[in-house]
Amino acid sequence: MIEKLNIVPFVSVDHMMKLVLTIGVERFLVELADEIEADFRRWEMFDKTPRVASHSREGVIELMPTSDGEVYGFKYVNGHPKNTREGRQTVTAFGVLADVGTGYPVLLTEMTILTALRTAATSALAAKFLAPKNARTMAIIGNGAQAEFQALAFKAMLGIDRLRLYDIDRAASAKCVRNLAGMGLDLAVCTSIEEAMEGAEIVTTVTADKQNATILTDNMVGSGIHINAVGGDCPGKTELHPDILRRSDIFVEYPPQTRIEGEIQQLLPDHPVTELWQVIAEKATGRRDARQITLFDSVGFAIEDFSALRYVKRQIARTGLYEELDLLADPDEPRDLFGMLLRAQAATPTAA
Amino acid sequence: MIEKLNIVPFVSVDHMMKLVLTIGVERFLVELADEIEADFRRWEMFDKTPRVASHSREGVIELMPTSDGEVYGFKYVNGHPKNTREGRQTVTAFGVLADVGTGYPVLLTEMTILTALRTAATSALAAKFLAPKNARTMAIIGNGAQAEFQALAFKAMLGIDRLRLYDIDRAASAKCVRNLAGMGLDLAVCTSIEEAMEGAEIVTTVTADKQNATILTDNMVGSGIHINAVGGDCPGKTELHPDILRRSDIFVEYPPQTRIEGEIQQLLPDHPVTELWQVIAEKATGRRDARQITLFDSVGFAIEDFSALRYVKRQIARTGLYEELDLLADPDEPRDLFGMLLRAQAATPTAA
Repeated sequence: MIEKLNIVPFVSVDHMMKLVLTIGVERFLVELADEIEADFRRWEMFDKTPRVASHSREGVIELMPTSDGEVYGFKYVNGHPKNTREGRQTVTAFGVLADVGTGYPVLLTEMTILTALRTAATSALAAKFLAPKNARTMAIIGNGAQAEFQALAFKAMLGIDRLRLYDIDRAASAKCVRNLAGMGLDLAVCTSIEEAMEGAEIVTTVTADKQNATILTDNMVGSGIHINAVGGDCPGKTELHPDILRRSDIFVEYPPQTRIEGEIQQLLPDHPVTELWQVIAEKATGRRDARQITLFDSVGFAIEDFSALRYVKRQIARTGLYEELDLLADPDEPRDLFGMLLRAQAATPTAA
Repeated sequence: MIEKLNIVPFVSVDHMMKLVLTIGVERFLVELADEIEADFRRWEMFDKTPRVASHSREGVIELMPTSDGEVYGFKYVNGHPKNTREGRQTVTAFGVLADVGTGYPVLLTEMTILTALRTAATSALAAKFLAPKNARTMAIIGNGAQAEFQALAFKAMLGIDRLRLYDIDRAASAKCVRNLAGMGLDLAVCTSIEEAMEGAEIVTTVTADKQNATILTDNMVGSGIHINAVGGDCPGKTELHPDILRRSDIFVEYPPQTRIEGEIQQLLPDHPVTELWQVIAEKATGRRDARQITLFDSVGFAIEDFSALRYVKRQIARTGLYEELDLLADPDEPRDLFGMLLRAQAATPTAA
């Protein structure tokens, strides 16, 4: 969409919000899940690597690259649970698409909002293949920044219309109720996890503490349920008692990463898991029967971000919701980078 | 320098050129080399990892992260030798600094120009410890985008005032002569590599083809010379005949990366090399005598980019040469990312 070689389209937070609102949150989630599903079907075409993590006492900073041989994408993302106490986000992110043929970036975008959307879209996509048929009730344990996105993704893609909310901080549940009011969801705020689980066919766990927690214990999990485990996503950070894992059929994104970061870090390294892409590509079975416990051990994988970046790139070309960033040096003669500097000096004598 | 949590300072190509010209190219190179030297002295404090490379037929896209425990930095950089035939840069780059404590990015900057500067600054820094004392003459084999930066770094830091230029494309040498005219350098354009090497105490090889080339053969290299080998920097891309390597004392940035990417990929994996930081920190010997051939097998390492990013961050705070980028989602209540979207909708009813 752009001819000037120095320019990279940039999607600011403001433009991303406008884009999401222009498309509509639910339609955005559905279309994004379609994009992720299409990329998961061609999973074998992608370069895959566990993300490159830099851990510190307070959190983690990660780079998540992937490529399908024509397009390269990566995301920068942090995870700092203590940030909320200082008025900051636990997770912030931005991402880049580039052309493999030239190595030139072709998109830079905020990805804090986009990550929230792609995480929810991936959860609902997994549930489409794994959750009990005709499920209508979902418990959401942990009502922070990700909760509403999960709610709307499951509503739009699975027809979930009853939510049972629980958070150790009641204000978080109240925030969810406020934000989701009038969107066609029946909302119940619960005072315990047990209460939230009553009648739920799907349970989403999405808490944020960086520690091994036991949000769900074995006795809370009845047969036939689908567990969408989103919050356990880095070493030492899990949400489920290992006994639940042993009773479940476990589905993961990319095993080499999930065995380090997911709930299954609590299991032996050879514990059997099924790759979600294989279920989507009809190379493996998803839900087999009504009594089976299915578990999507979600940690987030680079291909989901790649799908999201490509979706956004198409949508900004259509809507014009971006600005032009002067990011790439573009001398008239490509070998004359220094000459470009000299000519800039000649053009602005006061800068010398 | 900035209070708004959503804002990341951004240095465009235009601002980077203004910054370099305001400071002056030579002073910028000297101060940048000082910054790199200071970081090399505290080398052991850094998280180090070989860069994360995505190779394709046409080139490579790399992410180069590092951290000193307080500040995290990474660079995105490509290398596509065929790009120049399409009017594009072989190498483009941008970089990010982030606060380890919060994970929040604190700087986004173009790094195409900055990489050219830091590569030259690192070369001259290495030569300060390795080249023969009082050297005045340098041959530069390969007169592309990096050549003038190397010339000025060696002039400013070592007092090199005679350059012998050679390129298979005579127009590239002519461009160098044009750009360096009037800067206090005695410039000779040579018609062969042998001619360029005459009287040179230092030779810089900085060609761009992605292949194993033999820019220098053994008979061209006399005793006492310092070789600054810059162009061999990815697997299958080298410039020197292996016999030269066997006669030289070899100095490298980070052995696990250089053994994959540098000239020494042609040698056995246990061939002895000295880490440059150890020479700088006085833990290893640099040049021992006047007859020794020293070789800096430069591939570029993440810590050099980290130093460059920190230097730029300080300089833009001083000069104001940056703009504010709305990159980070910053809801009033950190857990209320979805509510921020809703409030954006309320604020711009036409976007709904």
